[in-house]
Order: sequence, then C-alpha cells, then structure tokens
Amino acid sequence: MSLIVQKYGGTSVGTLQRIRNVAARAVAAHRAGHRVVVTVSAMSGETNRLVALVDELSGGNYSQREYDVVVATGEQVSIGLLAIAIEGLGVPARSYQGWQVRFVTDSVHAKARILDVEAANILADLDQGRIVVVAGFQGVDANGAVTTLGRGGSDTSAVALAAALNADFCDIYTDVDGVYTTDPRVVPKARKLERVSYEEMLEMASLGAKVLQTRSVELAKKYKVPVRVLSSLEEGTGTLLTEEDELMEQVVVSAIAFNRDEAKITVLGVPDKPGVAAMIFGTLADANINVDMIVQNISAQSGDTDVTFTVAKGEYKQALAVLKDPVAAMGAKNLLGDPDIAKVSVVGVGMRSHSGVAQRMFKALSRDNINIRMISTSEIKISVVIDEKYMELAVRSLHEAFELDKDAGDRVRD
Amino acid sequence: MSLIVQKYGGTSVGTLQRIRNVAARAVAAHRAGHRVVVTVSAMSGETNRLVALVDELSGGNYSQREYDVVVATGEQVSIGLLAIAIEGLGVPARSYQGWQVRFVTDSVHAKARILDVEAANILADLDQGRIVVVAGFQGVDANGAVTTLGRGGSDTSAVALAAALNADFCDIYTDVDGVYTTDPRVVPKARKLERVSYEEMLEMASLGAKVLQTRSVELAKKYKVPVRVLSSLEEGTGTLLTEEDELMEQVVVSAIAFNRDEAKITVLGVPDKPGVAAMIFGTLADANINVDMIVQNISAQSGDTDVTFTVAKGEYKQALAVLKDPVAAMGAKNLLGDPDIAKVSVVGVGMRSHSGVAQRMFKALSRDNINIRMISTSEIKISVVIDEKYMELAVRSLHEAFELDKDAGDRVRD
Repeated sequence: MSLIVQKYGGTSVGTLQRIRNVAARAVAAHRAGHRVVVTVSAMSGETNRLVALVDELSGGNYSQREYDVVVATGEQVSIGLLAIAIEGLGVPARSYQGWQVRFVTDSVHAKARILDVEAANILADLDQGRIVVVAGFQGVDANGAVTTLGRGGSDTSAVALAAALNADFCDIYTDVDGVYTTDPRVVPKARKLERVSYEEMLEMASLGAKVLQTRSVELAKKYKVPVRVLSSLEEGTGTLLTEEDELMEQVVVSAIAFNRDEAKITVLGVPDKPGVAAMIFGTLADANINVDMIVQNISAQSGDTDVTFTVAKGEYKQALAVLKDPVAAMGAKNLLGDPDIAKVSVVGVGMRSHSGVAQRMFKALSRDNINIRMISTSEIKISVVIDEKYMELAVRSLHEAFELDKDAGDRVRD
Repeated sequence: MSLIVQKYGGTSVGTLQRIRNVAARAVAAHRAGHRVVVTVSAMSGETNRLVALVDELSGGNYSQREYDVVVATGEQVSIGLLAIAIEGLGVPARSYQGWQVRFVTDSVHAKARILDVEAANILADLDQGRIVVVAGFQGVDANGAVTTLGRGGSDTSAVALAAALNADFCDIYTDVDGVYTTDPRVVPKARKLERVSYEEMLEMASLGAKVLQTRSVELAKKYKVPVRVLSSLEEGTGTLLTEEDELMEQVVVSAIAFNRDEAKITVLGVPDKPGVAAMIFGTLADANINVDMIVQNISAQSGDTDVTFTVAKGEYKQALAVLKDPVAAMGAKNLLGDPDIAKVSVVGVGMRSHSGVAQRMFKALSRDNINIRMISTSEIKISVVIDEKYMELAVRSLHEAFELDKDAGDRVRD
C-alpha cells in the first residue's frame, strides 16, 4: 500500500465529464489499496476568466492580495466538484483549500513561495479511508491572507505535499505520456524516457521543455520526491524523476531541449573596465527583465569587450529601450539586437564523466551548415544560440547525432 | 463619524460597472468621514451557475460540505473585485472571507447559523483607514470547514457583522428604495414607510415580503441593530428598522403583506382524540415539510374535528402523498387540498393597544364579496386565506380600508 499524490492540470478537470474521469482514476487507485491525495488546478479557462475580470475592472492596476482572493476561487470550485464526484463513486472524500491544509507561504502575492506544509489533518483523513482533494496553486501567508503560487504552481503544490506526506509517488498527470528525448512534434522518432534525473529535468524545464514547472522539479530534487509524469488520457508507466545514482542506463546525453522564446542583445565595444557588466545587468534587473545566457569576450586588439545576452522575446523591446541611454553613457560603440534566434541544448548527467559531447554537438551542427551565435555550458548541458529558422533542423540533427532514437545500449560511445 | 456596514446584493454587484458603482458609494461614505464595512453577495447569476455545476455533476446527490466549498467562491470573487475597485478610487481596502473574519457557524452546511463573529481584525483595518469588504453568506465551522448560510444569508451576515462591530447603521441596499405599506406593483398608491418596527418587519418578512430575510430581522431585533433599507440605484433615506418605542407615528396598521406561494390542505372528520394533530404534523415534519397556518375546529354535532393548514405550494403534492395513508388509518373522513389560495395579512404593532382591526379587515373583504377560508392571528398581525384570484383585490381593498396611502396623522382611528 502506497501513499500517492496525484496532480491533474486544468485540462484534465476542464469539464464535468473530465472531473468524473479524474474521480474514477483516484477511486481506482484507492480501491487498489493506496492512500490517495489528489491535487487539482482550476478548470481550464477559469483562471483566465478570473484574471480577465480583474484586468477589465482595474485596467491592470490592482492589489496583488485581492487578485489572489479572486483567482484562488478557480481551484476551490475544482476541489469541491471533484470531492463530490469521488463521493458519487462511493468513496468518502474531503476537500482542502490552501489555508485549510495549510500551505504556509511567504506574502509575495501572485507568486508566493511555499514555506511549510502542515498536513496532519490530511493524514488523519487518509487514516479514516478518505480520498483527500487539495487545491493546487494556493496557500496562506502568516497574516492569514490567501496567496497564489503563480502560473503552473499546482505542480509545486503537488510535490510539496508529496514531500510533507512522505509520499511514495507524486504522479503528475499531463497531456503527454512522459518526458521525451525531445519534442515529438519536431522529431517524430523521439523516445520516451523511462527515467530521468532531477538535474536533467531541471535543465530541460529551464530550457523551455513545458512538461514540469522548474520550481516543482527543484523541490522534488531537494526532498527526493519520486515524481512520475503520466498521461491523463491513457494508461502507461510514464517517466520517473529520480536521483542520478538510481538511473539504470547511465547515458551521456538524455535529451535535446529547445526554446524559441528568446531574443539576443549585444552591447558592442564596451570599455573593458570594472562595473560595466554590473551596470548593464543592474539596469535590466531594475526593469524586472530576466536575463538567460550571458557571453562576454575581450577583444585582444582594441581592449574593448562585447557583451551578448538573451532575454525573453516578450521583454526584448523593453530591454533595448531601457539600455539605450546607459549604454551610450558608458561609451559603448553600439547596441544590437536580434529577436529571430533560438536556443538548442543537449542535456545529460553523463556529460559529467564523458568528454567529447561538445565536439559531437558542434560537428553535427556544422555538418548541416548551422552557424553557432552563442555558446553556454553547465555541468550537464550545452546550449547554443542559432538563427531561429534552423531550429528544427538543429534539433533533428542533434537527436540523430546522439542516437537518442536508439536504446541506450545500442548507442555508439565516444 | 459613524461606523456603517453596507450590504449589497447580487444584482448590485452583477457587472463590473455595478461593482464600480458600489465602490464609489462606499468611498463616498468613507470620504464623508465614516468607517465603512461593505458586505456583498455573489455577482448575480454566479451562485446559480455554481449550483448548476454541482447539480449536473452529482445528479442532486452530493455532500453539503463540498457544495459549500463550491458555492462560497461566488462571494469570494465579489469581495476581491470590490476591494480592487475601491483601491482604484484611491482608498485602501481589504477583503475578508467568512473564515478570515471569522464568522463562526454551526456545521449545518448550506444553511448554517452564525454562532459568533470575531471582528477584531476588521476594527484594526478600519483604524488604519481602510474600507473593509466582507463576503456575505459564508462562515467557517469549528472544524475549519467552509459553511454557507443559505439563500439570502448575506442580509444575515451584514446584520451579524453590524452587531459585532456595534455599528451605527446597517445599510441594506436593494432594488427598492425602502419598505412599503404593500407591494407597489399591486397597489400603486402604496407608501414608503420611514420607520418600521423589528416586529412588524419580522411579520412582513415571514408573510412573504421579500425585502429582508426573516433571520436577518430576528438578529437585528435581538441586537437592536439600526437597519436601513435603501436603494442601490438612487439616493434616499430609505426605511429605518427600529425598536417599537422609537417609532414616531404609532399607527395601528403599518402594512399589508401577501403570499400566493401557499396551498391549503384539510383533513375532514378527524376523530377528536389526543395525538391526532401530533400524528398529522409529525408526519409532515418527518418529510421536512414546513407548515404555516393551522386551524382546528371541533364540530359540535359529530364530535369529529376538521384540521386545516397551509404548506408551500412546492410541497403541496408531497404533503398530500405522505398524509394519504396515515389519515386513512386514523379514520378521518377525507383529505382535501386546494393549491389556488393566497394569504393576505395586515401588520401593525398598534394592534396591541387597539381593537377593531379584525372587524375593519373582515368588513372590507366582505364589501368586495371575498370569502375568507381561514383566519390566523398573532399579537401584531391578522392573516386570512382567500381564493388566489381575489388576492390583488383584497390587498387593494385593505390598503384603502386602513388608509395606508395617507399620512398617519390624516387617518381615521377606530
């Protein structure tokens, strides 16, 4: 008998029939002898409807505290309905809002972070044979105000709850049946991974793979929560997120991630003196613009330096605007930008103990005449920025170069 | 400087523009120097939408606890939006759900009763210059479960809050501009009452006048809360609910109430022995059918007795069905029913010290050839049951007979 936390997103509870399906799945696990806690999001479209009400009412200028009061109702409706649907199948159920669990968070409304999960009441309900239904996405701060975790926060709720309950599994139900070596829409030969390490999943999430929210993976890694990514539409074993040393097939590269939602900005001919980078990135931070990759090279001839970085496409124009005057003031030669880029990354914990990955990656891209505009590496990933139009080609090329369509045992090692 | 609790129903917050209007009204009172607490219902249609979701999902068979979780979201959306609208007008605001206030209730979900209101945090917010926005209709029980007070419970929330805060006024905003001598749609000459006693309002509410919920009037009476019934559409002084001894014009009859939502049932020829009435009304109570008027007469000749009573039209058929067998078993001669009746009542605290009201009432009805089928009296009201088709005629006739269209000083006294 396991304790299982199941998490269903908004699409999975988007209609009353789908809520019945989720109830049936939870009841099936319960009848199989498991102790079952279900975390759900708002019915799809509901959060958008609520946000639109707030926006239309306020013209975008509103108290985040009250925003949270309004949008938290989305999950509240879902948990009540799901509990009713479960009881309709003959199993006692009880719903919990964030403040009832309690999910204690900080007071940063609309993007609160979970500080503590007090789940004693949930354990008592499970002991009494109930299925427990918990609202994802929401919590309560020290003052008793309702908070929300921000978009995608339901994954984080589920993992935090699984950690607090010391659950055997945290099952995240999605519209895909697991984590793939890359997006199957780009590479039809992409393979589902049976297991993937927290670190790899973390890189993949932050590199733009949409399966799990980065924060939820960080939390799963921290508390070693066994997370399974499963399909809400069909049966299957999904993908298990696990610790590195439990990976059965120690492959070099696990997956190819990509992200076309970034834009590139270059400050050309910056005087090479202390404080210049601080000024550029301080300006962006003040404007709440997140920077992803940063590359700086010193020109041997001029003594000047070029700084290139990427930002989200949605913040590209604003970034150029806020940098214009400061960059001129510091005597830089030019400020250039390019929104038509994409980032492609190879990810794998095996890189830690294997060399030659970068070489194989660059060779593959070169073979297809794809020019590399930026390179950035971490311990377990190599990312390159290329022209956006080559993105699919690059992903396919790399997927083939690292033989990700083959079983790990059949691949050529460097 | 007064402390004012304002209450707005679902129609008053039914659109974003109307929410802005409510915000403007609250802010105007705040700027006039008052301490303002606003209680609101769900946006009109929202509670029905949520109830329909529950009904469709469950086929009507559901946990009341989870029903409350779902429907309580209606008010939660309203308070968040209203707080945002108030802040948009430049006054700091803070919303409170039932569990945040806290409105402590019993655990009778969907029709909970308020046990206590802990309003210390609200007073602290008022001290800091905030307008406080409170969700009507909802509370929390001793186990921390969300409860709702049942339809119309927002009036009760407002009055309970006004009592707990020792408010100077509890202003109930409605779609009428006060309490009238009778429904102006039936009698165009109906006059607005400046003041009405709690007792009269209580009778009028229980007799079918829809202005205020009975429970809220009971609560106002118990705690002597000065309630004003005001229009949310236009300025005006409305009607003040007050104690009897504060009434300026001690009139005999204040208003004519009516209710066409009742049906009449007669058990004919019941053996006149102990336990018969207990059996009839015990059977109805077991079936959760509420009985309003009851009349019993002993026939001098036969020694039998006839029992007549009224029930809500919606429960009429069920009442006949559950009574059929027991009535036959007790040897009654017949079970008769008539759904086409109406109840018309004259209400006035002046009846306590004046005789002749009944006589004037029966004379007026007789003049218009309206047959009286049942009579029932209390200290401050006389109700008659008549054929439904005569209802409007009876109301107009009585309104004229008691000169309710005239100023109290101009009326003829008995």
